[in-house]
Amino acid sequence: MRTHVGTTAARRKFWGWGLEGTQATDAEVRELAQRLHDRFGIQSSGPVDAPKLSDITLRDPRVVVPATLAGFCSVDKHDRAEHTLGKSMRDFVIGLERRYDTPPDFVAFPCKEADVVAVLDWANDNNVAVIPFGGGSSVADGIDPGGVGDDYAGVVSLDLRQLNQVLDLDRDSRSALIQTGVLGPALEDQLRPHGLSMRFYMQAFEFSSLGGWIATRAAGHFANLHTQIDDYVQGLRVVTPRGAVQTRRLPSDGAGVSADRLFIGSEGTLGVITEAWMRLQDRPKHRASASFRFRDFEAAWKATRAVAQSGLWPANCRLLNPVEAAFSGAGDGKVSILIVAFESADHPMDAWMARGNEIVLSYGGVVSDASGDGQKAGEADRWRDFFIRGPYLKEAYARLGIIRETFETACTWRDWPEFHAGVVEATQKAVDAECGRGTVACRLTHVYPDGPAPYYTVLAPARRGAELQQWAAIKEAASEAVLRLGGTITHHHAVGRYHRPWYDQQRPDLFAEALGAAKQALDPAGILNPGVLIDPNPRE
Amino acid sequence: MRTHVGTTAARRKFWGWGLEGTQATDAEVRELAQRLHDRFGIQSSGPVDAPKLSDITLRDPRVVVPATLAGFCSVDKHDRAEHTLGKSMRDFVIGLERRYDTPPDFVAFPCKEADVVAVLDWANDNNVAVIPFGGGSSVADGIDPGGVGDDYAGVVSLDLRQLNQVLDLDRDSRSALIQTGVLGPALEDQLRPHGLSMRFYMQAFEFSSLGGWIATRAAGHFANLHTQIDDYVQGLRVVTPRGAVQTRRLPSDGAGVSADRLFIGSEGTLGVITEAWMRLQDRPKHRASASFRFRDFEAAWKATRAVAQSGLWPANCRLLNPVEAAFSGAGDGKVSILIVAFESADHPMDAWMARGNEIVLSYGGVVSDASGDGQKAGEADRWRDFFIRGPYLKEAYARLGIIRETFETACTWRDWPEFHAGVVEATQKAVDAECGRGTVACRLTHVYPDGPAPYYTVLAPARRGAELQQWAAIKEAASEAVLRLGGTITHHHAVGRYHRPWYDQQRPDLFAEALGAAKQALDPAGILNPGVLIDPNPRE
Repeated sequence: MRTHVGTTAARRKFWGWGLEGTQATDAEVRELAQRLHDRFGIQSSGPVDAPKLSDITLRDPRVVVPATLAGFCSVDKHDRAEHTLGKSMRDFVIGLERRYDTPPDFVAFPCKEADVVAVLDWANDNNVAVIPFGGGSSVADGIDPGGVGDDYAGVVSLDLRQLNQVLDLDRDSRSALIQTGVLGPALEDQLRPHGLSMRFYMQAFEFSSLGGWIATRAAGHFANLHTQIDDYVQGLRVVTPRGAVQTRRLPSDGAGVSADRLFIGSEGTLGVITEAWMRLQDRPKHRASASFRFRDFEAAWKATRAVAQSGLWPANCRLLNPVEAAFSGAGDGKVSILIVAFESADHPMDAWMARGNEIVLSYGGVVSDASGDGQKAGEADRWRDFFIRGPYLKEAYARLGIIRETFETACTWRDWPEFHAGVVEATQKAVDAECGRGTVACRLTHVYPDGPAPYYTVLAPARRGAELQQWAAIKEAASEAVLRLGGTITHHHAVGRYHRPWYDQQRPDLFAEALGAAKQALDPAGILNPGVLIDPNPRE
Repeated sequence: MRTHVGTTAARRKFWGWGLEGTQATDAEVRELAQRLHDRFGIQSSGPVDAPKLSDITLRDPRVVVPATLAGFCSVDKHDRAEHTLGKSMRDFVIGLERRYDTPPDFVAFPCKEADVVAVLDWANDNNVAVIPFGGGSSVADGIDPGGVGDDYAGVVSLDLRQLNQVLDLDRDSRSALIQTGVLGPALEDQLRPHGLSMRFYMQAFEFSSLGGWIATRAAGHFANLHTQIDDYVQGLRVVTPRGAVQTRRLPSDGAGVSADRLFIGSEGTLGVITEAWMRLQDRPKHRASASFRFRDFEAAWKATRAVAQSGLWPANCRLLNPVEAAFSGAGDGKVSILIVAFESADHPMDAWMARGNEIVLSYGGVVSDASGDGQKAGEADRWRDFFIRGPYLKEAYARLGIIRETFETACTWRDWPEFHAGVVEATQKAVDAECGRGTVACRLTHVYPDGPAPYYTVLAPARRGAELQQWAAIKEAASEAVLRLGGTITHHHAVGRYHRPWYDQQRPDLFAEALGAAKQALDPAGILNPGVLIDPNPRE
């Protein structure tokens, strides 16, 4: 039996974010604590040490890896620990408390589709739950065996990381057939020599997979026109317990209900997405961007809305409210900052930027930084790098005993003013009640002609050992407000098990019944990611 | 009991297209026959007369309208005849043969959602099939009671024309809550005073409904960026036999599988879509367009592809091959014509048009007509009017005994050269075998970065009385080639019953099982549009 994948290269940490050895340095953590204290008056109770593998004990596997699967499955302690928790604050705190109580019984690392089929067949026959695992970046309890419950003989984490190749590249149609276990950077590495890119970036880019993006309906930045992964999917291959589903690769299709769309967003409950034909873009050569300051947040979001409705389709249009801007060191806590960027592989973006500029200035925005075409070709990449550094700091907050967690949503522009006021009020009230003090920041990560996708960040001091209850109360208050005021419980973080209480209110009951019936048809034994998105089928 | 809707205004014809009195004049029909003879050597065997209501006999209703539904249901002969056939050549020929053998037993014209519920409840209890009916423009046997079969006690056509109001308009979010029975012109009439438009036009615009567009995944012109109706839907209300489904109105959403997308394209088999929140646009103020001629069709489609991949997102990008151009009187039969148009409510399109122009010229296109910003503001509208006149001529072709029918599809750019050659070859061969002579024309009605949506028109002399068999053989050959070479059996005409043989090959079997299970959950008695898209549920 193999031990774990990647023994020769650096392993991924079993706790926290990234590869072993990539955590924030002690000096960085100290500096962060100091900054939180000086700027927000938040006192840290740490840092406490990250867990070491020797700190934790894993229960014995409840099922034995059968000989037929032994060639690609692992009971290695690191592998099992790595697949026990996701990447939310909650996961990090549980990990810090050394509570690795519900590891998968083993981890499968399939090398080919037949391996996936073999795992599903065996699991189906043996009442073992299977959790499809991409990059493991879920913040919604989407990949944790702990939520599976006791109805199963065991749980296998099915990690697709070895299915990571671009299998076919169609330059004429700017698209590629890609194995879904590939992580963001490895995908872009394979596309770059062909002058192509998916231009699909999010904060978890480094350690999230194509299959994960599709299964959770992820949203990318540099993508304000085609934001959701849905729009990038040209065709899918999905292995279900009853066999493989191969959809036809097409640029567009009106033949009945979209088969792709049944699997996009299914969060591992209907099948394992193994391959996808994805739409790509030529790598941009022309860029233009500007950032603007506003003293008035209302003027700022009205400018943002006007840009979103202009038909200019910027590659980036992101608004930071004053608190959010201060978080990222970009403002003085009084100004909102709007970033507008255009890019193209075909033509200079001067006319686009000029009109974007006009629109924003007409709402009272003041240019604080502008870069013409080509002058700062690397700016977008630098911003991306900064952005991607975020998850590394997240584990530092947990070590410091500070609540720093986010929630994200979307609503219409009509709902937005009341929505925003109500969500901030409810959240702040809960923060004050639970933590005594703290701040709620907001940025618009994506904007659509018909509404924004706001992203809220809570920063508050926690009582060590009580962080999870404190956060749960804040999340409850925030989510109740989000639903009551017309938002969605998630715009791109997925439902998982974490968002179920609110998702179950949001989605129509009859739709859930229809989806459950579809699941029953594809996964009659209910072994796929039980508890995520919908209840597992009744056991027979 | 009411007789029929619209007694005071002009009625819709029960055969052919449009309102009573709107058919092509005798002079127009004679001129058409002459032109077909002179230009294509096609001899007409007509015109024969359109059927009059007194020419036809309808079977007696097999079920009696219950008292509870009597207030909004009709057994009027005109109403039943009007709901017997669709708008394909096949339908027109059957109508010319006076074969109205399978009318609905009665037609329901609900005035409110409760009426829809009442029809479904009664039908569910009495084993009566229900066919949701929008504008009746189906060319895919989507609304014909004839295909329902003998397993039902009767068939009701559920015509939503009285549910035709914009119920709520959200200017901030540029969207509206709309009853789905509204036809294209009435919808635009209600939006115009607010400076808004759906900008969703297709050839059937005059007599197709919002609900029909959603149920069949229609595609609009002036919409090369957001082509499919899917992208316009913000939220839906659907009445199923088990109750109403209301999805949450959102600009974007990543909460699990999209509920809207289960109903979009369901072709009346899962429920009756009664209301929809739709995304709108500001009415364009700035326009620029140009048409280009090419001697070489390969250069023309390569230019078209380059425009589609440029990120300029023209409002229209349409390529006519030499035969197609000649059809519409726009070419000499040797040149291909490419039309590129931009429009905006926000900014002049000069920079966009200039770059579009550059691209097309670099492939050898020659400008044949260009209109700068604002100079020919009405050109797009005039083209639209011409385009919308098409269906009126369709009935004239049928009366002349000439096959003029279309099929449409989509494929990737990689497949396209071989696809096009193979489809034209197979179709032409069948045309020659069946009709002795005839032509196959092609236009690209929609182009995507990853592939075109070609639209083929067949024009051939028919033997009176044998038109349907002749066309069936041609359609069979064409469809076999479309599927074999990588296309879809329909890009926007829907599946209905007509495309089932090929759709059943195209869609994954397990997906059909999942969809069937979803249908069983929502429509356990299988009363909704039986035979369309998927087989009705097994009767109990």
